[in-house]
Amino acid sequence: MPSFATLLDGFRRFRSGEYQDQRRRFDALAMHGQSPKLMIIACSDSRVDPTRIFDVDPGQVFVVRNVANLVPPYETTPGYHGASAAIEFAVTQIEVDYIVVLGHAQCGGISASLSGKFDGAAHGHGGFIGHWMDMIAPARDATRAAAAANPDVDAQQVLELAAIRLSLDNLRSFPFIAERLEAGTLKLRGTHFGIADGILRVLDEDTGRFEPVPVG
Amino acid sequence: MPSFATLLDGFRRFRSGEYQDQRRRFDALAMHGQSPKLMIIACSDSRVDPTRIFDVDPGQVFVVRNVANLVPPYETTPGYHGASAAIEFAVTQIEVDYIVVLGHAQCGGISASLSGKFDGAAHGHGGFIGHWMDMIAPARDATRAAAAANPDVDAQQVLELAAIRLSLDNLRSFPFIAERLEAGTLKLRGTHFGIADGILRVLDEDTGRFEPVPVG
Amino acid sequence: MPSFATLLDGFRRFRSGEYQDQRRRFDALAMHGQSPKLMIIACSDSRVDPTRIFDVDPGQVFVVRNVANLVPPYETTPGYHGASAAIEFAVTQIEVDYIVVLGHAQCGGISASLSGKFDGAAHGHGGFIGHWMDMIAPARDATRAAAAANPDVDAQQVLELAAIRLSLDNLRSFPFIAERLEAGTLKLRGTHFGIADGILRVLDEDTGRFEPVPVG
Amino acid sequence: MPSFATLLDGFRRFRSGEYQDQRRRFDALAMHGQSPKLMIIACSDSRVDPTRIFDVDPGQVFVVRNVANLVPPYETTPGYHGASAAIEFAVTQIEVDYIVVLGHAQCGGISASLSGKFDGAAHGHGGFIGHWMDMIAPARDATRAAAAANPDVDAQQVLELAAIRLSLDNLRSFPFIAERLEAGTLKLRGTHFGIADGILRVLDEDTGRFEPVPVG
Repeated sequence: MPSFATLLDGFRRFRSGEYQDQRRRFDALAMHGQSPKLMIIACSDSRVDPTRIFDVDPGQVFVVRNVANLVPPYETTPGYHGASAAIEFAVTQIEVDYIVVLGHAQCGGISASLSGKFDGAAHGHGGFIGHWMDMIAPARDATRAAAAANPDVDAQQVLELAAIRLSLDNLRSFPFIAERLEAGTLKLRGTHFGIADGILRVLDEDTGRFEPVPVG
Repeated sequence: MPSFATLLDGFRRFRSGEYQDQRRRFDALAMHGQSPKLMIIACSDSRVDPTRIFDVDPGQVFVVRNVANLVPPYETTPGYHGASAAIEFAVTQIEVDYIVVLGHAQCGGISASLSGKFDGAAHGHGGFIGHWMDMIAPARDATRAAAAANPDVDAQQVLELAAIRLSLDNLRSFPFIAERLEAGTLKLRGTHFGIADGILRVLDEDTGRFEPVPVG
Repeated sequence: MPSFATLLDGFRRFRSGEYQDQRRRFDALAMHGQSPKLMIIACSDSRVDPTRIFDVDPGQVFVVRNVANLVPPYETTPGYHGASAAIEFAVTQIEVDYIVVLGHAQCGGISASLSGKFDGAAHGHGGFIGHWMDMIAPARDATRAAAAANPDVDAQQVLELAAIRLSLDNLRSFPFIAERLEAGTLKLRGTHFGIADGILRVLDEDTGRFEPVPVG
Repeated sequence: MPSFATLLDGFRRFRSGEYQDQRRRFDALAMHGQSPKLMIIACSDSRVDPTRIFDVDPGQVFVVRNVANLVPPYETTPGYHGASAAIEFAVTQIEVDYIVVLGHAQCGGISASLSGKFDGAAHGHGGFIGHWMDMIAPARDATRAAAAANPDVDAQQVLELAAIRLSLDNLRSFPFIAERLEAGTLKLRGTHFGIADGILRVLDEDTGRFEPVPVG
């Protein structure tokens, strides 16, 4: 299994290349700490790297990556709330001015939700995934209904977009986010990247639809 | 707040540059799906981008990023377990052959744990962070003791490394991971990146210590 | 306006190149006439050339191209029925064994239908286009309803696919087609090409959905 | 009936070959839409592919193909006018600067017109073809007369060329074309391709004759 060795080779390229080129930046980041203005919540999918898709530099974005880039609703129940901890850290400690949810095409978590393949699965056999995706059950049901009513509806993409809307709604359910949205010191954005066509869609607050970002 | 605009500018650079250059790769990844051999669990910290530090290509690594790159213990209780869902997805669905935990120097979550600044804090005031970091309470206590006994111990780095060991232990607590470790089809690695000195340390299974990776 | 000259240059390339290379084929086609086994009904759009997309040789496909690759219903009223004449020629004279409707992404006729921009327009100002697209009015209304009910539905693609279904239904309304379908001597296929992602979708008679064609 | 499978095989060749090679072009065409400078009205005949004969790239020509490459006269009567809709789209929406009518040797529609084999035929037995070819009845009658007066006249080719002239006249009968011809912003060209001899003839406005295009 040589794959870990490829990571070490990659590190050596980074260490002798970009790290040297950006030495002042890394020094400053080490000395003064991070102060990114943006938080991005993205998917763990290996094809959708937010720092690459947005071509950002070290220190620019605070990143959470999980299955299907989901934000759970505000819950103060016991249990470890990783996403909530990261959101609280970004908003109340770093004080980012944007939280961007980045969804993507062909998301495995979304397709699992649509197919219901892990419904009631045992832990270790998709049970964790299935339960995690339960978060978007309402959107999944609405999407299935739309696809049932019209066979030409692309249920996968519809649910990918609906899940982004749901995560934005869940973000608004955090009191410390709601008050900053109210004060205008924080903004939320929903985005979706098409791996096959390279189209980035952004949820337009005016039209209420995901609109493609014009490029050169 | 112009920061979101910088993301869109970055996307345009990506779209007209790397996306075009790697069109065949993205095309193949869209057509055949992802099949990364590696999962990386890294920190949300904006200075520590795992795909950059390991200089990997799109499709090579399945990535989870959360505060302090922690893996919770195997829990089947209610509540959304984002890290567990991602781990189950990577191990049982994608069948990666490595899970790499990447810690780093100057981790804000680790320093919060050491200082206890969020102990008993209210939600929205560090409560989520504090509770998330409770996960490493035993390591924190041991580290504080070591630092109390020896003023020259670098408590911050000691706890960063101890937290990586703890996450590796928690990974082993997942039955579907334990059996694959047993079968030799999955391996775990602990790594730590020094932002200021650019040193990557890897936990050596023989010496039981984190050893610096030699660079050309 | 040099564009016609580019056609003549292109002809000289063809004449000294492919025409020579395929001389035997063109000779045979001239001597024995055409006997293609396939008819393709495609769009006039300059980006969607059916002989290129299906990489066919001279003599292989009988091609109709019009705005939005539409087939009108069986009408014996006066007025010139160009599509019907071509279909009658292909089915009753050449006796093709397949009629393939090829739709495509970003179809200007389809988007005009959705937007209603030419509704009631005067001839010479979109009136001919608007009236031609009236053919799919029922599908347009159903698509608008689906998009109104769910903002994440891609109305453009839904109508592109629905229009293909409608053209297939209209083909079945021709008695001389219906009887050959019955006899199994003729088959119909609906296909859709994505310019941006290069995906070819084929209407699957079993699932009743447009499914992507797997490629190497 | 394996012929549809050959289309899918052809698509796979296209998808892995030319589509990849011309990825930037298809990408630009998808992003910025089509803006061809030329419209070509050609025959559905499988041996006469205009994009091949003129060796054009994707995005260069807006194409109508019907039986015998005919343009009906300007008619605002009810009934679906496919050719008129395509012409209106090309001239008023895309604003092409040339409309090229491409006729060809051994045209089945032309020979049917000459022989009168479908005169009064029932729909489904050549009735649609016969009625469609009625469009050139005056030219057919003149051609028959010429052939009766002179046994050495090649009636088939005479009518093929006369039909192209008639289509050019019908194009001029569209008000929105007439005004652009007047303004010099649009030009018309008549061309004829010989399948057997590979000769392209272009109607010369000065001599009023179809003259062969000299080739290197």
